[in-house]
Parts: sequence; structure tokens; C-alpha cells
Amino acid sequence: MVGVAVIGAGYWGPNLVRNIQATPQLRLTSVCDMNLARAEAVLGRYSTVRATSSLQEVLADPEVDAVAIATPAATHLEVAMAALEAGKHVLVEKPLASSYVDGHKLVTTAEERGLVLMLDHTFCYTPVVQRLRELVRGGELGDVQYVDSVRINLGLVQPDIDVLWDLAPHDLSILDSVLPDDVTPVAVAAHGSDPAGLGRACVAYLSVQLSSGAIAHAHVNWLSPTKIRTTIIGGSRRTAVWNDLDPIQPLALYDRGVDWPDGTEDRRVSYRIGDMVAPALPTGEALRAVMAEFAAAITEGRPALTDGRSGLRVLAQLEAASASLAAGGVFVPVENGRTA
Amino acid sequence: MVGVAVIGAGYWGPNLVRNIQATPQLRLTSVCDMNLARAEAVLGRYSTVRATSSLQEVLADPEVDAVAIATPAATHLEVAMAALEAGKHVLVEKPLASSYVDGHKLVTTAEERGLVLMLDHTFCYTPVVQRLRELVRGGELGDVQYVDSVRINLGLVQPDIDVLWDLAPHDLSILDSVLPDDVTPVAVAAHGSDPAGLGRACVAYLSVQLSSGAIAHAHVNWLSPTKIRTTIIGGSRRTAVWNDLDPIQPLALYDRGVDWPDGTEDRRVSYRIGDMVAPALPTGEALRAVMAEFAAAITEGRPALTDGRSGLRVLAQLEAASASLAAGGVFVPVENGRTA
Amino acid sequence: MVGVAVIGAGYWGPNLVRNIQATPQLRLTSVCDMNLARAEAVLGRYSTVRATSSLQEVLADPEVDAVAIATPAATHLEVAMAALEAGKHVLVEKPLASSYVDGHKLVTTAEERGLVLMLDHTFCYTPVVQRLRELVRGGELGDVQYVDSVRINLGLVQPDIDVLWDLAPHDLSILDSVLPDDVTPVAVAAHGSDPAGLGRACVAYLSVQLSSGAIAHAHVNWLSPTKIRTTIIGGSRRTAVWNDLDPIQPLALYDRGVDWPDGTEDRRVSYRIGDMVAPALPTGEALRAVMAEFAAAITEGRPALTDGRSGLRVLAQLEAASASLAAGGVFVPVENGRTA
Amino acid sequence: MVGVAVIGAGYWGPNLVRNIQATPQLRLTSVCDMNLARAEAVLGRYSTVRATSSLQEVLADPEVDAVAIATPAATHLEVAMAALEAGKHVLVEKPLASSYVDGHKLVTTAEERGLVLMLDHTFCYTPVVQRLRELVRGGELGDVQYVDSVRINLGLVQPDIDVLWDLAPHDLSILDSVLPDDVTPVAVAAHGSDPAGLGRACVAYLSVQLSSGAIAHAHVNWLSPTKIRTTIIGGSRRTAVWNDLDPIQPLALYDRGVDWPDGTEDRRVSYRIGDMVAPALPTGEALRAVMAEFAAAITEGRPALTDGRSGLRVLAQLEAASASLAAGGVFVPVENGRTA
Repeated sequence: MVGVAVIGAGYWGPNLVRNIQATPQLRLTSVCDMNLARAEAVLGRYSTVRATSSLQEVLADPEVDAVAIATPAATHLEVAMAALEAGKHVLVEKPLASSYVDGHKLVTTAEERGLVLMLDHTFCYTPVVQRLRELVRGGELGDVQYVDSVRINLGLVQPDIDVLWDLAPHDLSILDSVLPDDVTPVAVAAHGSDPAGLGRACVAYLSVQLSSGAIAHAHVNWLSPTKIRTTIIGGSRRTAVWNDLDPIQPLALYDRGVDWPDGTEDRRVSYRIGDMVAPALPTGEALRAVMAEFAAAITEGRPALTDGRSGLRVLAQLEAASASLAAGGVFVPVENGRTA
Repeated sequence: MVGVAVIGAGYWGPNLVRNIQATPQLRLTSVCDMNLARAEAVLGRYSTVRATSSLQEVLADPEVDAVAIATPAATHLEVAMAALEAGKHVLVEKPLASSYVDGHKLVTTAEERGLVLMLDHTFCYTPVVQRLRELVRGGELGDVQYVDSVRINLGLVQPDIDVLWDLAPHDLSILDSVLPDDVTPVAVAAHGSDPAGLGRACVAYLSVQLSSGAIAHAHVNWLSPTKIRTTIIGGSRRTAVWNDLDPIQPLALYDRGVDWPDGTEDRRVSYRIGDMVAPALPTGEALRAVMAEFAAAITEGRPALTDGRSGLRVLAQLEAASASLAAGGVFVPVENGRTA
Repeated sequence: MVGVAVIGAGYWGPNLVRNIQATPQLRLTSVCDMNLARAEAVLGRYSTVRATSSLQEVLADPEVDAVAIATPAATHLEVAMAALEAGKHVLVEKPLASSYVDGHKLVTTAEERGLVLMLDHTFCYTPVVQRLRELVRGGELGDVQYVDSVRINLGLVQPDIDVLWDLAPHDLSILDSVLPDDVTPVAVAAHGSDPAGLGRACVAYLSVQLSSGAIAHAHVNWLSPTKIRTTIIGGSRRTAVWNDLDPIQPLALYDRGVDWPDGTEDRRVSYRIGDMVAPALPTGEALRAVMAEFAAAITEGRPALTDGRSGLRVLAQLEAASASLAAGGVFVPVENGRTA
Repeated sequence: MVGVAVIGAGYWGPNLVRNIQATPQLRLTSVCDMNLARAEAVLGRYSTVRATSSLQEVLADPEVDAVAIATPAATHLEVAMAALEAGKHVLVEKPLASSYVDGHKLVTTAEERGLVLMLDHTFCYTPVVQRLRELVRGGELGDVQYVDSVRINLGLVQPDIDVLWDLAPHDLSILDSVLPDDVTPVAVAAHGSDPAGLGRACVAYLSVQLSSGAIAHAHVNWLSPTKIRTTIIGGSRRTAVWNDLDPIQPLALYDRGVDWPDGTEDRRVSYRIGDMVAPALPTGEALRAVMAEFAAAITEGRPALTDGRSGLRVLAQLEAASASLAAGGVFVPVENGRTA
């Protein structure tokens, strides 16, 4: 069994604690927070697990093989680097770090030391995204023609990051997980609005130009009183529509669509009127699957599905989005795509 | 009663015929199409109305006070100009013309001759948009912070125009109708994709920078097997969500939202958790209201709610969108806003 | 071409007029209403069709081969009998007549004279019900285990009939059309409530015991401010769910369900977790298909799909429901099932 | 703090354990199951709480002030009686017991000994039902004209009880909680079907005649592949519609409806076309509120909101439903209404 300590007992920490405890291959050794009372509160009155406010103590503990980090993004470089240098495997909340440069340091260090560095891109471990990955990469959808994602809700206006950095990592990591290896982001454009003069965008639109010529687009929004979380992946053969708020049938596959002319001079399109299928999907909490993958990557000495490199690719696109936002919406090339 | 001839018996013509016949203030005199059989087919076997293939004949008919034009956009300049020069009032399908310059000629001619030139911006006459207009212009929603519109469906790939020119006029005319007079479009950016190399965008995203600093955004798409038609108007006091596919409760007003700091140094926001209200709305076909407004504008000698100037403002934004698309997504200034 | 006159220009008459006019095999000769102005209003200002207030005149007209009757139910016996005796084929709104005895007279007369007597059970001609009929009778759903129907809305409280006689004919005619020939209603029970003392039920529940042991149940309600129209047909192999208010995907077929023990001593059940399929369906107005069937039955000299006998079977069940309601909800045998 | 032991570590036990641990006024002392391994599994690897297979040991423990019983219904009499006789307060899963007579013994014993006997009617502690209770009992809905409930899903076919005893307790306890004191059930009728010959109904319809003349109806069904959980409370002034599967806006209040004649000779009704309001509701797990009420009832020495008497009233109606089912669907008087 792999001994794991949780670092950070804030919003997400309790979920890590609960899921590590429920994973047979992992053993929760301790929960660490600068605020000891908060660490204790996460564990509750009935726990045998140790609470501590000392990161040094945790990193010095030989029973700790790995850490799961849920501290603010600005601290990821420092905390994760300390853990890696202490020889611990690392699972870290998104985003990997505050900048591409910082993230790159973590990736390099982990690779040099042969340690697992894994991103908690939770959505990538949902049954829906795993099915979408199979459908897209297995060719069942055909060529991806567009991806459209809407992720809007009343959300906490973050003190230091805008809505793009808060919400778009979900969409970008899903995209990273689902697309075939030869379809990579080449440029990113973003439009945003800050209607109350808070100094950061609360509504934003992100367009990612893919190497195939297709476009992936995300609408992220902290101000919407209705919650919408929908992703459409339009393919040349089928189209997948994922409504994350539908607990019963979140995924729908449409056989209907447009039949494209194939290289002939006749440029007319025709329409297929086909069935819709909502496939049966396994149930289960995604974070449980994150933990199983973390344990397996450590045990088998291999990169996790959402390894540090995937976190870097997301950071590259976030930085390009910020640059585009500042430059009035032009497409900004992405410096580090999937193959970099 | 105002005598009206319908010009063009294609896709939209039958709707014009049916609604003119049902409007007491109008009298349908004739239906004209280059293809006489098509004009006859629209009228059916039981009609007393005359079918003709001669536009000259229609325009020479003293019983014809006005024409309703539903021919392809490329012919609007020629047909509408002939009608105006023959002294007929004109109701024309969107877009007003193929270019801003052409549209401007029509507006000028109509104004010089004191004739009604009205756009059939049908959506502006739905009970929902009329209520939205009251809510926004009456101040009940507060300041408009963002407008987000999604209009996607399997759609006919048009032979000569892209998806922006096909679908975005709906969103732009609604915006034109709903926004207060002092909030005008200042710049437009568009991203699009042509995944099958047909030479025109089939998926597009439009961002309109408003003079207030807010952003209005539309997603238009011919390739989606699911039909979505939703418009969100986020206001500082309330937010309106319009689902055009919900026949029972298309409009929802949310009292919940974000309370913004008002100019003080404290930049923290707070949240209101309030009720949602779906207001009761009158029923009725929007095109019936279009016809009533056309008749009233003619009778009262006044501009229609969706007059030629509103059609020009939409054209200005469409041209800017095309320019942005060609230039890689930068914001292109709009030359002719509401006040031009 | 079959000449048809419409008798009754009230709520439903305009739909008959419109659909007869659009059916190539039929020719609309006249519209008859005791109130001549109402007949004229249905035809409008542009029609070549004759309006009249004289039923005698219509029935004496040799150009009239058939009549479509949309008068109040209490007049069906008189009007339809007169038409049959004048040698006219008859299409009549549901219910066939006010009582089983009256309906039987009409059926007998039509059969004796070799005339088509057809019920306008419009729902039976929708693409959904036609598909359900194929699925059930073709065995794809397996044995029908239960049928559950909800048909509720704010509805006009009728002056002379209760909610069962107003709305349940829809459900009973659908059931009659969909079930296999060897599954017949054997008894009917009804519970109802008249919360405002109007002397007739405004909310009612109908249970139909089928010869197979399964139960079919309908909830009909004039007082519900939400509109629901859902029918579930639970089969031993698949289950069909029809939401008539979903314009896009009204029909869903569930592969998941319960696997039953088959005669062995082991009485344990297991569960299938399967996909849901929303089949593509043809579009088109059901009343158009009613008219095509009426024309075909006349031309081919055969009974219509929803012939007088089907109307009689519905009447038998309505009378049993009324008897059960009066007797406190016991099951009342149905005297005339499918084979009578 | 009140010391509580959980008896029964099956399906529901983990929820009790989790919620007792999260309730400050309660202290979880032990978890008891005949199968010790199951009790241990519920607690997990990190718990300080004791697992045991000895009920005697639990009841002899002076630190145990109360027990929460989640064993099969057939054992409720024995286990709860032992607990009461040992002087422990009791929270018990529904139904209170297997029969009215057994339930009555428990109620009497608890009352004689001054102990809290509370039913875990969890739904009664949801924010929606608490609001419905206020709306109905406070008069905002007007007189209750009908209640319609649908609770269908693929469900485990129980080895010893039918679908009525499995699911209808939810609807009956909600009804018991929501209705005013002077509106009581007077008779119950039930129709059911056992399409696979398992010896118990898998689909059932329940009609409850209320003392006001209104009817409450429930459709319960183990065989439906679609999950529906909807309750409509139709009032003379407003109607409430609760969709328990809508996590965002579960409750809708309709101002529109029928305006009834009030005692005059004119029996015509008219219609109100009003708004719909979805009220903002507090969030929170209902079982947490159950635990708070259990603690408060013990501390304050008062009956709980869902006390043993409420469990008895539900049992009375379940027994009447079974009798009606056996007798072919007649209404069976309820022997013990709210005031008995």
C-alpha cells in the first residue's frame, strides 16, 4: 500500500481525504494544513489519521510515499517542488502551476527523479470522458469538426485569477484527453468582459485553433444564475453531446448529421436523419478513479494518464489565452502542443 | 385596407401569404414568382388570389399599395428598389441587402419618397422579445453585463452565404431591438471554421463589443444534430434566460446573482440567492404581429419598429464580422451604430 | 378525387378544412355550420369554397361523396346517421357517439350500406403511435407488462361531459391501436374527484385490466397548470417512453430493464443496464395522414385503420369507467372488447 | 451530547453513520450488525468507532442513549422493542413495523416510558417538503384539490414486500406531513399488477380519499427504466409542482389555474394566466436535518415531527391499500386517521 498525505484542507481537501480512504491501494497517513484546526476539522471526531500543520514533518515521514496537494495555485511550485525533492510522488490540483515556466520546472524535476507527477484533472476520469476518449480516438465519431463547451454558473469571483484560469482548465484538460495524438492546439484566442471593473474577466470566450483546421470553443462565466455544463463534439460521422447536469443520461450520440462531399467537384452536402443513442455508462465517483490511477502509476512506475506534461499543455493554452485577451482577441500561437 | 403583393414563393413565401390573409388591415392582391407554378402552388386550389410571374405587372397594379419580398438576398436591392420607385411600401426579409452600401441606397430612397421600408425581423415581434425589450429598456434587469446567444441546428449549407450571414441576423436584430438607445455596438470579432473545405464557415462565434463595455456573443452552427436556441441577458439586477424551444415557459427571470461593489474601495462581491420567475406571456404568431406593424406604419405614416435603419445596423455588424473572420479574429470597428 | 364537406366550423373545423385542402386525393366542396358566419370565417376572405348553414343542402349535393363531422358529441348520432342515410362516407370526431348503443347504430348502418365510417383518432396517425404499433405488435418490446399514460393540463371544463369522456378517448384509442389483437380490455375501474362541486370529475384515474393480466392506467386532469403528456409502454424486453411535448425526440426506447425468471423455481430477477435509443421518426402532421387514410379507405372500399368498430371499443370502456366511478372504483367488466 | 448506536449496516446504515458523525449534538458510539465484517466495513479502516455483532452489548452500554435502526422491516418490532425496554430512544427506518398492530405496540411502549420514537421519513426533512408544509398549512395554495405523485424507477424487487409497501410510505409520509390537521385520509383504494407472476405487485396505483373530498394518488413502479419522481399539489389558489430529480429548481409554484365559482348559481369557471415562481430554497442533506430533529426531540423531551403516531398513520393506509388490492380495487376505510 502506498502511504499518502493530503496537503491543504480547504475546499477540495475533504474530497481527497474521503477518496484516498476508500481506495484499497492507498493508505492515508496524515492531513496537513497551515491551520491545524482546519486539518482536524476535515478529519472529524472519529478518525485515527494524524493532523498536522508542519509540511516538513510530513515530508520527513518515511511512511509517506506520496502527497496530494490541494493548496492555492500560487503555492504549487513551492509545495510540489519540496515534495519531489523529498522523493515523494505528487498528485496536484489544477492548474499545475501559476505559469508555464514554473510548471516546466516541476515536470523536469519529477522526470529526473523518476517520480510520478500527476494532475488531478478529475473530469478526465469520469465515465463520460473516458467513453468520449474511446469514441474520438477509436474513430467512431469520424474527424472532429468542432468542439463546443459551455461551463457557466454563479461562481466565486476569485481574488487573483480570472474566469479563464478558474474554469477553462476543465475544458482544456478534457480536450487534451479526448483528442487524437495528431490533432493539437496551434493557436488560442480569447474575448472577455469585466462588467463591474474588478480588474479581471468574469465572462470569457475561448477559441482554440486545432491543427486539423477545426475549432474548439469554450464559454466560461461566473455570473450566470443558470448552471449549464454542456460539451458538444461534432464529428464527421457522429456527434456526441454531453450534458454533465443530467445524472441519468449524460451522453447522447447522434447518428444524424451532414454527409460531406468527398473530394469530388460536387460540393453539395446531404443530411442523414438517424437515431440518437444514450449509451449505458458505468457509475462511480471520478475522484475514486483518479486515486486508482495515481496508485497504479506509482506501483507500475509509469506516467499517469494526466501526467505533468498534460498539465503543461493546459498551462501553455491558458497563457496564450491571457495574451490574446490582452491583445484584443487575436489568435496567439501555442508554444507547446502535445508533441513538444 | 392596404393591398399587398407577395414577391417570392419559396421557403418563406407561404408564411407571408397565410399571415397577410389573416390580417384584417391587409388585403392580399397577388403572389409573384419567376416560376408561375410555384406561385400557384403556394396559393393552392381554392384561392381567389391571382398568381403571376411578372413583377412589372404587380408594380403597375394600382391595387398594390405595398409588397412583401421573400426572394434571395442577392436580389433584394433590385426588387426592393423597383418597388420603391413604383411608389410601393416594402417589407423585406433579412438581410436588407447583400452589403451595407446597397442597403443604404434602399434606406435613402425610401426616406426620400416617404415610403415605409420595414425588415421582417420576425423574432423582434415575439412576445418574449417584446417583454425583453421592456425589461431591459425599462431598467428592470439593471445594466446589461453580457448577452450570450446559441443558435445551432442541422441547417441547410447555403450556396452563397456563410453561417454568420444566415443565422446571426436573428441575434443581431434581437440585440438591436432590446438594448437601450445609449448602448451601441462598437466593434465585432468573429471566429469560424469550415471543417469540410466548402469555402465558407459552417460554425462561427461572434463577439460584439458594446459601448457600455459589456460583450454580446453568439454561437451559430449549421452542423449540430441537437437544436439549441437560447439567449441569456445578464443584468446587474436580474438575468433573463430565453429558451426558444420551450413552448410553455420560454422566459425565466432570475433574481439571484452577484451583488457588485459600488465604487467603494472594497472590491468584494456577494451573492443573492433569489427566486426564479417565469412570467406569463401572451400567445400568438410573431409574423401576425409583423403584419400588424407593417399595416400600422403605412397607415400612420411612421417608421416601423424594425425599419430600414435597423436593417442597416445589422448589415454593418455582419460586414464587420466577415472582415474579422478574414483577419483572424481581431475586433473590427462598426462604422454605423444606432446613432449614425 | 373524393368530394368532402366539413360539418361544424367550431374549434376543430379549421384543422379539417386546412388538411382536406392540402390532400391531393380529396376536394373540399363546402363547409357547413348552423351559424353561417362561422362557416364563412373558417374559409376566410380568399376562398372559392362554398359556406352554408344547410345540412340538407350538403347531403343533397351529388358532388359531396363524404363528410367530416366536427359538431358536439351529442349531435353525432343525428348528423352522422343523416349522412350515412344520404349515402355519404363519414369521418367523425371522437367520441363516436354519446353512448355505446348510439355508436352501434352508426356502425351497423355504415356496414349495411357499405360506407366508410371512420373515427378521427388523430393520435393514432402520428409517427410515434405508428412506430409504437409496429414495436408492440411486431414483438420488439416483448410482452406488454404495463401501460401508463398522463394527460394533464389546464383544460376547458366541459358543460356536459367529465374529464374522462373528454381526454381518455385519446389514451383508449391509442391503446386500441397499439396492442396486439389477442390482448383486450376485460375490465375498467375509475377514481375521480370533483373538488369544486361542479357535478362532474375534473381529475380522474382510469385503470384498464387487460386480458394478459397487465394493467393500463391513465391520469387525466383539467386542473393542472403544468402540461404533461407522457405514455410509457413497459415491455418484457424493452420499454418505450413517449413524451408528446418533446418536438425533437418524442420517443425513447430503453434496452435496460428487469430480466424475469422464466418458469424455473428460482424466482430471482436480475437487471439489464442497456442503452437508450431515440429513433429517428418521419415528420408530418397527423391530420394529413388521417385524410390520406380516409381517402384510401373510400377508394379501396375497405375499413379505415380507426374504423367505427374501434370507436365502439372506446365507447365501451368509457361507459364502464363511468359505471366504476359511480360505484366507488370497482372494476367493471367491458362488454365489448376487440373481438366482439 | 447524545450517544447513538447504529443497528444494521446494510444499504442505509452508511448514511446513518455519516450523518450522525456530522451532527454536533450526537456522538456515534458503535455500529452493530449480525455480520461483524459488514459493521466493520461501514466504519472503514480509519475509524475510532467500535463495531460489534451483539445487540445486547449495545443495549447494555450506558453510553448509548439512543439507537438508529436500519434492519429489515420484519425485525423492527423485536429490535425497537428491545431498545425501548432498555430505555433507549429510537429512530427507525420506514415502515415502523410490519403491521399496524405491531407498530401500535411500539408507540404505546415509547409513550409509556417517555422515550422518543421517531420515524426516519427522510423526505419530510427536505427543504422542498418543509416549504410545501408551510405553503399548504399556511393557506397559500388554498384548498388542496388533488395530490398526484409519481415515483417510478428500476427498483429491486423485494423478497417479502410489494411495491406499495416499498415505495408508497414515502408518498404517504409526505402527505401526512404536508396536509392540514383537518384534512385526513378516510379511505384507500389500490390497483396493482404482477406481470411476471412473482406473487406481489411490481406496479401499483394508490388512491387516497381525503376528508375534504379531494383525492391523493400515487403511481409506484419498480419496472420503469426512466426515473420519475414528481409530486403535484393542486390548490384552489396555487399549484405546487415538485420534481425531485431537478437539483437546481425542484419546486415550482403556479399562479395560473382555474377560478372556481363561489357558491353562486353561475357554475362557469374561468382561467387565470399567471406567472410561475421557482422559489430559492436552502440547501443541505435531509438526513442531517433528521439527525438534528432526533437530537432536539430527545433533549427537549418532545415528540419528533415524524413521531411514532405518524408512522402508525402510514401503516394504517398501507394495510388498507393491501386490503383493497386483494378485494379488486374498492375503497377501504382507513381505521386510524390523524386524529385517532
